[in-house]
Formats: sequence, C-alpha cells, structure tokens
Amino acid sequence: METVRWNGDSVTILDQRLLPLKEEYHTYINYTDVAEAIISMETRGAPAIGITAGMGIALGAKNTKAKEITAFKDEMNRIFDCFAATRPTAVNLFWTIDRMKKLIESINDIDEAVKKLEAEAVLILKEDIESNKQMGKNGSRFINDGDIVMTHCNAGALATGGYGTALGVIRAAIEEGKKIEVFACETRPYLQGARLTTWELLKDNIPVTLITDNMSGFFMKNGAIKKVITGADRIARNGDTANKIGTYTHSVLAKEHGIPFYIAAPISTLDPQTATGDDIVIEHRSIDEVAYIKNVQIVPEMIKILNPSFDITPAKNISAIITDKGVIENPAGKGIMEFFS
Amino acid sequence: METVRWNGDSVTILDQRLLPLKEEYHTYINYTDVAEAIISMETRGAPAIGITAGMGIALGAKNTKAKEITAFKDEMNRIFDCFAATRPTAVNLFWTIDRMKKLIESINDIDEAVKKLEAEAVLILKEDIESNKQMGKNGSRFINDGDIVMTHCNAGALATGGYGTALGVIRAAIEEGKKIEVFACETRPYLQGARLTTWELLKDNIPVTLITDNMSGFFMKNGAIKKVITGADRIARNGDTANKIGTYTHSVLAKEHGIPFYIAAPISTLDPQTATGDDIVIEHRSIDEVAYIKNVQIVPEMIKILNPSFDITPAKNISAIITDKGVIENPAGKGIMEFFS
Repeated sequence: METVRWNGDSVTILDQRLLPLKEEYHTYINYTDVAEAIISMETRGAPAIGITAGMGIALGAKNTKAKEITAFKDEMNRIFDCFAATRPTAVNLFWTIDRMKKLIESINDIDEAVKKLEAEAVLILKEDIESNKQMGKNGSRFINDGDIVMTHCNAGALATGGYGTALGVIRAAIEEGKKIEVFACETRPYLQGARLTTWELLKDNIPVTLITDNMSGFFMKNGAIKKVITGADRIARNGDTANKIGTYTHSVLAKEHGIPFYIAAPISTLDPQTATGDDIVIEHRSIDEVAYIKNVQIVPEMIKILNPSFDITPAKNISAIITDKGVIENPAGKGIMEFFS
Repeated sequence: METVRWNGDSVTILDQRLLPLKEEYHTYINYTDVAEAIISMETRGAPAIGITAGMGIALGAKNTKAKEITAFKDEMNRIFDCFAATRPTAVNLFWTIDRMKKLIESINDIDEAVKKLEAEAVLILKEDIESNKQMGKNGSRFINDGDIVMTHCNAGALATGGYGTALGVIRAAIEEGKKIEVFACETRPYLQGARLTTWELLKDNIPVTLITDNMSGFFMKNGAIKKVITGADRIARNGDTANKIGTYTHSVLAKEHGIPFYIAAPISTLDPQTATGDDIVIEHRSIDEVAYIKNVQIVPEMIKILNPSFDITPAKNISAIITDKGVIENPAGKGIMEFFS
C-alpha cells in the first residue's frame, strides 16, 4: 500500500475519502489537481500532506513553460503559495515548502532547479519512511509480547509516507516477533480510526478490534488495554502535545488506570517556538463533520454544534515521547528539557 | 410531545427511530404490534418501555374473545410472556408485567380484570411523570443559574412518560428561573444524544449544544462544563451505577476536573439484590450499531468490533444520586447505606 507515489511525470494518490469500502488511486499530471487533492482530504495526515505537497511542487516545476529563470521563479512562488493555502495548520506542509524554496534560491538554471526539486520530493518521502522505521525501533521496547495496545485516529502508513508513527512503533514490535493486538478508537467525528486504521492494519494482518471512543474507559477498567499510543500534531517546549480530539480524554483515563500513555512523532513535530499547550491554537472544523456521516444527516436542523479538531494532552499525562532521534521518557520531569539541550 | 399515548382502544407511539428528521406517530390496535414496536426500538428507554408494555397488555386484555375466566387468564399469560421477551434487560418492563399479573390474580370476572388492567396502564404513565417531576424538584438545587450541564445518552422525556430523569432535573431548574445550557454528548454508537436529546431540548427551547463523546475532556478542561448529570439503568446496593456506555469515562474526567457528577433515576432503579457493579451483567449489542449509521457502512468488511452497551460508574465517582424519594449524597460514603435503611 502506497499513500502517495511519484511517477516521474505524475503523482498517484490513494483516495482516503473512499476508504475502507473502496481502494481507489488517482493519478494527476497538473500540480493544481494535487493541491486540490490535499484540500479535499483525498490524502490527509500531517506527514503525508508534506510529502504530497513536495511531489506537487516538483510536478509544477516539471511542467513549467518558462524560458528564463526569473519567470520560472515567479511561477514557482505562485506554486508555493498555492500549496501553502491548502491546509494552513499542517506543520509539515510549511516545512516542505520552506525546504524546496531554499533549495532553488541560488540556482539560476531552470533545468537544474527542476531536477533538484524532483530529487528533493523523492528524498522527502524516503526520509519520512526511514524516520518512521527509526521511531519504531526506538519505541518498540515499550510494547510487550501479548499486549493489547489502544490507539486513536490514524497515525499509520496512511498518514505518512508508508510505515506510520504510532502504528510504526506497533509494526516494529510485531517485526521483533511480539504478538500484539490493536484496539482502534473510531475517532469521531471524521472516523479516521474506523475507516483508516482498521483498513491498514487488516491489510497487514495485524489483529485489530474497533471500539467507539467512549468505550476506552470500559476496556481500561476491565484490564484489556495494556498500553496507549497515539501520534501528535505539535509538541510544545514543555512536552504538552496537540493531537486529534479525544486524545486528552484517553490520557486522563490511562492515568486513572495506571496504563502507560505514549506519543510517537518525528522530531519535526517538536516545536521549540511554542512554550506550552496553552499557546497552541486549536482548529475548529466544519460542524457538518459532526452533523453528517457520508451525507446522512444524524442531527436535527438548526442545532448548535462544536467541533474542535484537536486537544492538548499535558506532559504530565505522557509516559514517553518516542521520536526518530530518541525517546523522551517522563517529559513532564526534566526529560524534555534535557532532550532540547 | 408524548412518547406513548393510551387512546382507550389503541396505543399511539412516537417512532424514535425516525428522529430527529421525522416526527411520526403510529397507532396500534393489536398488542402484538405494540410488542413489535418495543423490539424494533420504535420506543426505547427503560421507563418508556415499561409504560408501553403496560398499555400493550391493557390492549391485549380489551381485545380478548375469551368467554370464561380460565381461558382469559391463559390468554393473559401468553400476552405477559410476549412482552417479557421484547427487551429482556429492561428492569421496568418486568416491574410492569409483575404488577399487572398480581392485579388480576384474584379476580374472577373478565370485565373487571380488563377494566383494572386499563386503569393500571394509565396509572403507570401518570406515576412515571409524577416521579420524574419529584426527581426534578429534589435535584434542581444542584444546578446553578448560568451553568452549562453536560449529559450523555437520552434520559429525557423520550425515555420516560414525559418529563425525563436527568433532563427532568434540568427542566425543573429552568422552571425555577435558572438560565441553563445543556451540552449533549452524541452517544455512539446509537446516537441517542445527537438524535433524541437535541431534538427534545430544541422542542422545549432549552439551549443545547451537541458535542462528540470524545470532546467531554476538552470542554471540562477549558472550564465550559460545570456539572454532569445522566440517567441510570441499574444502581447496585453500594451505589455503583450501570448506564449507557461512555458514562464511566465522563465520570473519571469529571473527577479529574473537580466537576460534580450526578445520577438521576427513579427509586425503582435501585436494586438491593445487586451487591456491587461487578454483579451487573453488561449487555453486548449487535456490532452493526457500530459498523453502520442508518444503513451507511463506515468500517471495512470482516472487522472485529466490540459493542458493550453499558458501563459501570463506581459510587466513588458519583457526587449524588437523585431519586423521586430523596437524594443520596456521597453514595460511596455512608450515603447509600443510610438511604436503604
């Protein structure tokens, strides 16, 4: 399974909106269609968005009709702006755009710039998969043979270049020969757990059981769940972590039941510019995500709905943050300060 | 709005499966159709099931063609059995059946028995509404002017004869002139909060905001939610309370944030035969409730799903149990023992 693929002259994207009922891939030859695929959530997940944007930018560069470098760079700036406007909160997106911008700053030959951008897009994908595998190696020791591990949302292959962050740690533990079962929370309102996590784990023959988000307390209390592991969208300087709505609720329950709670995320998710979780702005998304499930209306007309898409898990609820560059144990203690220094 | 109505020769039921998009009432002249309406969840909620069964039994009695009392009583026993088999876990159902059985035990005149059963069905409805209103009066002092009160599932008019248990307490507080806003958790998988609680509160012009179940931690942490109140399906002798799946999770979060957590239920929900929550058997319902939302499949084929329909909130997480016969404060302490004695 590939989330997104570079074909040299086109980009192929798995349409995640149709999962799990249909596995459909779309191939685009224009960068504007790639940008549209990000906007419409055909692909999603912060790392996957960054990778797709890189390929879209490379595609735009390859298709240029510019004859001289100034016109080319003007065109590239329009392309960068186009991708920057797709999903304004995904941190990896801006990281990709900055990286590709800097790459061509001092280049004065169009062919050379196009080649460099293409190579960079391919490299970003390769680096992402390597980073996930390293994260898996770093974190697998926390997962014991026989564990049932609960996860929330989709921090898997579908959200990244291929291996996953939280699910990457689980995959690594399984590759080491451990027998692991996953409890996937369905993750209302957008159902990433029900639609995506179950699908990708089934594909890999990893035993998975779906539960609704409000069952996590039940299965922690009855002793089924041994560990919790999720991804992260942004980690503040003090270890407070923004992730999909519901993560905080699970972390409080894990603490209540003495169950270890892990975050797995690439080092680029750690944001030294953000002091604490209070400084992270929470995106509120369309209330239609709550009111409709695949075009089926489930609430009365005119009802007031709130839809914060993320919440903040305080560092004190996190047993360890697993990154590609090492593990931060007990982030609320000295852990995260030592790691940053 | 009436959940269920006795018309003298028929029973009219609000089809709750069609809510909130359609308000449709069905009138039945045969008791078997009333039983079928309970099985198919056209009406639901433990008190409402008990009331509807009472009316169905009265209807069966009225339609009897029996000419002598033995044949009549044989027929009534078949009718009692028919209703007992509709929803085998609803405690109020058996309470109704027992009550009506005893009523005709010593009667030897068919006309007299039929009249008594009809009067009893009407009385059960009347008593339920009075009990809810008394519960409201007993509990309203816990709700302050300006509070945002969170509730889970539907413990409202739709689950009872008309006023509601948890929502009855909120209604009573509002009738006393307090300005109250309700946060309704959508209550996966069956969406009683999204479909029913929002609908009945909108009808009564009570301000209501819908959130997904996994948002309760977020809105407790940010200070929005001041109180939590839910209904109950069964309360053990030590105060442990079975209620809709997700209730336990909310109770842990409420404790973490120092938010009072109340249960509102009629005295008949207290079960002295059950020692603790561990002795309450949890019903696991069809996994299709999780896999489909109104016939729309949201999960992959062949996926393993768990669907416990209730969980147990330990007495220590409950600030007070509000009943029609008085309030049990601090049930984990001496509260519930004093109440039972």
